[in-house]
Amino acid sequence: MRLKTLVALLSLTVILLTACKSNKQQDAMITANNTALFPKGNKLTNGYFTGDAFLKPLLAKDVNNGFAMGSVTFEPGARTNWHIHPKGQVLVVTEGQGWYQEKGKPARVIKKGDVINIPENLEHWHGASSESMMSHIAITNYKGEENVVWLKPVTGDEYTAVNK
Amino acid sequence: MRLKTLVALLSLTVILLTACKSNKQQDAMITANNTALFPKGNKLTNGYFTGDAFLKPLLAKDVNNGFAMGSVTFEPGARTNWHIHPKGQVLVVTEGQGWYQEKGKPARVIKKGDVINIPENLEHWHGASSESMMSHIAITNYKGEENVVWLKPVTGDEYTAVNK
Repeated sequence: MRLKTLVALLSLTVILLTACKSNKQQDAMITANNTALFPKGNKLTNGYFTGDAFLKPLLAKDVNNGFAMGSVTFEPGARTNWHIHPKGQVLVVTEGQGWYQEKGKPARVIKKGDVINIPENLEHWHGASSESMMSHIAITNYKGEENVVWLKPVTGDEYTAVNK
Repeated sequence: MRLKTLVALLSLTVILLTACKSNKQQDAMITANNTALFPKGNKLTNGYFTGDAFLKPLLAKDVNNGFAMGSVTFEPGARTNWHIHPKGQVLVVTEGQGWYQEKGKPARVIKKGDVINIPENLEHWHGASSESMMSHIAITNYKGEENVVWLKPVTGDEYTAVNK
């Protein structure tokens, strides 16, 4: 091998490895910054959800806060039953994309960063889309000791129609 | 240049460029997933903050929700004045790292994923650390029409002592 060729080979290696290293550093920085906002919590097994949904409780009602707060994570396809909140609920979508549907209205896409103010006594459901997971903070106001009334499941037909 | 050398040179180039490309794709994927939860909003110019702090309002008090909700972003070094909430406040840290300090107690590190339940009428401040930005959702309960009473600024000396 001639010296000129050897120098070219070494130069190329150094240039390409430097580029790769710079990419890797950037990558690591972004990954470190991209951890989920909350742990996933425990799988919901109360019978009011379809598919795999998880709850991480964040705050219980107390003397100042007239609401409970938790982070709910829905795997693709997972959703709540139809239900109502006697004093309404606020959702803050923190990851992914899903659906929010009020009875008799078209479903609405909800995604990371959206805030949904759900009125009192309005039948509705929320959950992931069939293709994406979705996490939201739920801030659920109490009317006396009650903050939710569960109704029937969102059927496969209802869910499929929304995801078409 | 001998054929063998040329082949070695070309092989090395292909291998290194492939590795770089793979890194770049991963990088782009992670970046797409790492957008901020909320827009930064507008710079706070009400005189109750030191340094650069921004507010994105998310929800106003209404018939069901006895609180206002907003996302506050503090650049490194930025913080609130000392203040109290007549009916308390809940903070949800959504990005970065900062401080929460109650009057007469040591400051506490707060970071992404932390939930802080601030009691009523307790003098305190919160903000970024000197080295990191910090964003939090603030859920501020109302007592009648009032949800905050602003007090004096956190001095440079107070802030420096905390960041030592």
